[in-house]
Amino acid sequence: MSPQQSSADASSDLLDLRYRMRHSAAHVMAEAVMKLFPEAQIAIGPPTDDGFYYDFEVSRPFTPADLEQIEALMRKTQKADTSFSGVMLSHDAALDRFQDQKFKLELINDLPENEEITVWSHESWEDLCAGRHAESTGKIGAFKLLSVAGAYWRGDENREMLQRIYGTAWESQEALDAYLERIEEAERRDHRRLGRELDLFFFDPIAPASPFFLPKGTIVLNELIDFVKELYMKYGYQEVTTPQIFNTDLWKQSGHYDNYLDNMYMIDVDQREFGVKPMNCPAAAMLYAANTHSYRELPIRYADFGRLHRYERSGVTHGLMRVRTFVQDDAHIFASLNQIAQEVNSFIAMLDEAYTILGYGEFRMALSLRPDKRVGTEEMWDRAEAGLAEVLGASGRKYDLEEGEGAFYGPKIDFFVPDALGREWQLGTVQLDFSLPERFNLQYASEDGTLQRPVVVHRAMLGSLERFLGVLIEHTAGALPIWLSPVQATIIPIADRHVPFGQEVVEKLRSAGVRAEVNDGNDRMGAKIRAAQVQKIPYMLVVGDREQEANKVAVRERSGSDLGAVDVDSFVAQVVEEIATRA
Amino acid sequence: MSPQQSSADASSDLLDLRYRMRHSAAHVMAEAVMKLFPEAQIAIGPPTDDGFYYDFEVSRPFTPADLEQIEALMRKTQKADTSFSGVMLSHDAALDRFQDQKFKLELINDLPENEEITVWSHESWEDLCAGRHAESTGKIGAFKLLSVAGAYWRGDENREMLQRIYGTAWESQEALDAYLERIEEAERRDHRRLGRELDLFFFDPIAPASPFFLPKGTIVLNELIDFVKELYMKYGYQEVTTPQIFNTDLWKQSGHYDNYLDNMYMIDVDQREFGVKPMNCPAAAMLYAANTHSYRELPIRYADFGRLHRYERSGVTHGLMRVRTFVQDDAHIFASLNQIAQEVNSFIAMLDEAYTILGYGEFRMALSLRPDKRVGTEEMWDRAEAGLAEVLGASGRKYDLEEGEGAFYGPKIDFFVPDALGREWQLGTVQLDFSLPERFNLQYASEDGTLQRPVVVHRAMLGSLERFLGVLIEHTAGALPIWLSPVQATIIPIADRHVPFGQEVVEKLRSAGVRAEVNDGNDRMGAKIRAAQVQKIPYMLVVGDREQEANKVAVRERSGSDLGAVDVDSFVAQVVEEIATRA
Repeated sequence: MSPQQSSADASSDLLDLRYRMRHSAAHVMAEAVMKLFPEAQIAIGPPTDDGFYYDFEVSRPFTPADLEQIEALMRKTQKADTSFSGVMLSHDAALDRFQDQKFKLELINDLPENEEITVWSHESWEDLCAGRHAESTGKIGAFKLLSVAGAYWRGDENREMLQRIYGTAWESQEALDAYLERIEEAERRDHRRLGRELDLFFFDPIAPASPFFLPKGTIVLNELIDFVKELYMKYGYQEVTTPQIFNTDLWKQSGHYDNYLDNMYMIDVDQREFGVKPMNCPAAAMLYAANTHSYRELPIRYADFGRLHRYERSGVTHGLMRVRTFVQDDAHIFASLNQIAQEVNSFIAMLDEAYTILGYGEFRMALSLRPDKRVGTEEMWDRAEAGLAEVLGASGRKYDLEEGEGAFYGPKIDFFVPDALGREWQLGTVQLDFSLPERFNLQYASEDGTLQRPVVVHRAMLGSLERFLGVLIEHTAGALPIWLSPVQATIIPIADRHVPFGQEVVEKLRSAGVRAEVNDGNDRMGAKIRAAQVQKIPYMLVVGDREQEANKVAVRERSGSDLGAVDVDSFVAQVVEEIATRA
Repeated sequence: MSPQQSSADASSDLLDLRYRMRHSAAHVMAEAVMKLFPEAQIAIGPPTDDGFYYDFEVSRPFTPADLEQIEALMRKTQKADTSFSGVMLSHDAALDRFQDQKFKLELINDLPENEEITVWSHESWEDLCAGRHAESTGKIGAFKLLSVAGAYWRGDENREMLQRIYGTAWESQEALDAYLERIEEAERRDHRRLGRELDLFFFDPIAPASPFFLPKGTIVLNELIDFVKELYMKYGYQEVTTPQIFNTDLWKQSGHYDNYLDNMYMIDVDQREFGVKPMNCPAAAMLYAANTHSYRELPIRYADFGRLHRYERSGVTHGLMRVRTFVQDDAHIFASLNQIAQEVNSFIAMLDEAYTILGYGEFRMALSLRPDKRVGTEEMWDRAEAGLAEVLGASGRKYDLEEGEGAFYGPKIDFFVPDALGREWQLGTVQLDFSLPERFNLQYASEDGTLQRPVVVHRAMLGSLERFLGVLIEHTAGALPIWLSPVQATIIPIADRHVPFGQEVVEKLRSAGVRAEVNDGNDRMGAKIRAAQVQKIPYMLVVGDREQEANKVAVRERSGSDLGAVDVDSFVAQVVEEIATRA
């Protein structure tokens, strides 16, 4: 479920070039840091997909002025255009060479003593390094230092806290500028910032990586859930409600105890061990097993909006994108083998409907096939993979094949959408599971009276609703579709004497189910309009003498376009229609 | 929040009489058991509100035949009409007297050695006992043995598991019969049984005291939540969504760590201690504190349907009535002192509206005043109590005063409803809190620009929704109001040829939002009607040739009454109206 940066535009040659220039830029940066802070202990400094970084231990925090100086020194080195060259040293010689650098010594000591060690240098500066550099310091491209952040040595919270300087380097000034524009746009769209600005949610260290949703954020979450529930009604799902804390016997039976314990919150109750659920699957299996079933009842589709908890290291959590607690549009389908195709088909149709309404007109599909380590017979896999491929083929959509990438319990299809920044996000998934029915001894009485195992289909369209909200906020830059907007219309009276008429309009909108408010504050009209735009409110309805007399509202959209004066009742009807159809 | 048995009909004389006869009946029962099982180890056997019990350790489980024999021996002893008499023994003499009874020895050894010990006897049988007996075995009234259950010695799960025989005894055969009828009715209405029969929910030891709600149970829960949300809309509440797992710092700040730790589930994460929330209050305070507030914004009403977890010993959990996990219709109001009266008033109005719709036409109120141990100034208490009393006075309703019963943080009003079995249940509560705003340093800018503390009002109408559902099921014997019924109408085709018409009717009902189904199984009409009655489905719509021709349905209610043939469209309109108005 991690975001994937599309890199279709970068050939492997270009990728190699960037790797080398960024790797070298990191060396050049470390050299500059050591010129300014001779006592600095240097850790590691690799290239990344977007640039490079290097970790340092110095006695005080780097300031913006430091970064400027470092950058200036780097430009000097760039101009000097010195070659990069590597040499091989014995273990002892390497220890000697880096005797003042404790992190390097630690790295060297972790290597086998009989192995030679490479050291790369430019000018007189050298670093422990496996190589792959630009030819010379002149070839580190158009670069820029970006920011400083804390980072633990070796990512270990119990080791030294270092300072990491991030930089970026590109093959041309144009490419650098384009990248800087992209990150500026990404910052502008950052869902954590918008979440606070739009009063949707916030985080607090008292509950790490666990969002607090304010009233407006709760409206959006509830609207998403209601939307999914409507689709569930149409596609024949039944909602269920299951516990959150289970004895570990359940997690042993489900396999989570062996495979997922590190991500689970464990609790001792009455001297027995319990686990907070990270997934709904075992509870769904228990619900199924609570009654006997006949083939006539299948497929049974249980949807569960139960809150899940998964422990994630604090280093990898990120806003709503990666949290420790979330709710999924999660459902489990219990079906016979020959119902798989129809169920997957119906799921893709529902997902298509959902994505289209949510503004993701296109999506990519990837079919992941049997991995080496797997359960179930070959015949089952043949049938399941063929079933999925057939459904995908019949859909007329293109899809990617991922050999060996299926879950150990069955093949799966993942669904990806592109966002406004050109990034791709995996949202939906549909997975066949042959293991859960075995582990929970699930059965149904077949037509011939024998007891058969159902197959379980795990599926989600939006995945974690928290994460989906984060993705959608960044995609829309906070301008959510009207049906998801916490405030759908704000009335802006030009003067105090227009407030009563504004309230009449609000009343009309509210009784029609529209979330509307009057801005009767003391700001001037222009300021109120700007405030509404910042809040991404879809409609601003300005009311003054003329509007009041004619029973109209002057309608402006958040985009800035002015729709002119519209009859109040017509506007109400139009906005109700827009919301009802989720336009 | 425990159920309270009304005992207004029993004078204190009668209560004393019952105590004595039941206490003596327990002795007579233990004597009988020892006649049949001479090796029995006897534990304790007190009278209860409804009867008596005695705990025994014997080598095999008691059978129904054993109970019959025991009862027969008791009747013999009753006929013999032997006196009860007490003697005082020294500690050593008592140890000697009960040398073969290990539980009695343990009890004696727990008493101070210099204290004399009372022993009561009838015939030659004697028991360690503080007295208060009937005059003679002839005076143990109309009695009956009821059941056997397991019970730990001294309620301690680490001690011996004993067998407890329950019996009951009353002053007359008439009173006994009335009681037996009451428990039979209570068993018939037992929500745990009905929950299973109606496919609403079930329990499993894998998640002790944590209900699994099947699709039908989830429909009822969701309908209750939607109902409360509608009232929230009308009364100006905003819904919020908060985390479930918080660092203990929060629980220390809120006071739960000092006062509620034994009921909390604790988790270690990243070597720090976390607690699963047992209440929403601290999270509500954090939401309030996340922004600055002006007096113009008050009152702020945050509603939170967050799932709560409270550890309860397995001995005290009971079906949905006392669970370890539940959701409340919980809200916290942040108000200025002079808004208290209006807020409480408005809450009582909302609660009245809710209870009336839910079938509780009348409710009792109790105002609990300042306890000895409390926070806040006397002036605050004066004002708050006077405010509550004034609201209650103005409501024109009677209420009880409970001196000293308020919470340590403020006075409260509790709301009680009677059920069909004459029991009384506390559902709603409204509590003023002066402590939380202090602990979380909550503030608002008042009209004069100074920072002031708001008061927090905790309130719930239904309380735990799980418990409310249990209470409602027992009150209605499972015949939930139509708007809460998982299936609102079932169509019963007389013959197979009427199924298509039945499906047409179902389609009409469903598109109008009615939860309807066709029973197209192979049973005969009579059996289908009985099945629908068992399932407490409000309407059974029988369709045969005559109905099909006339586009009608023959309507029967679950009560058994026959409404005759009704035009399909009229029926749909009528049932839609009934559901919409929550009739």
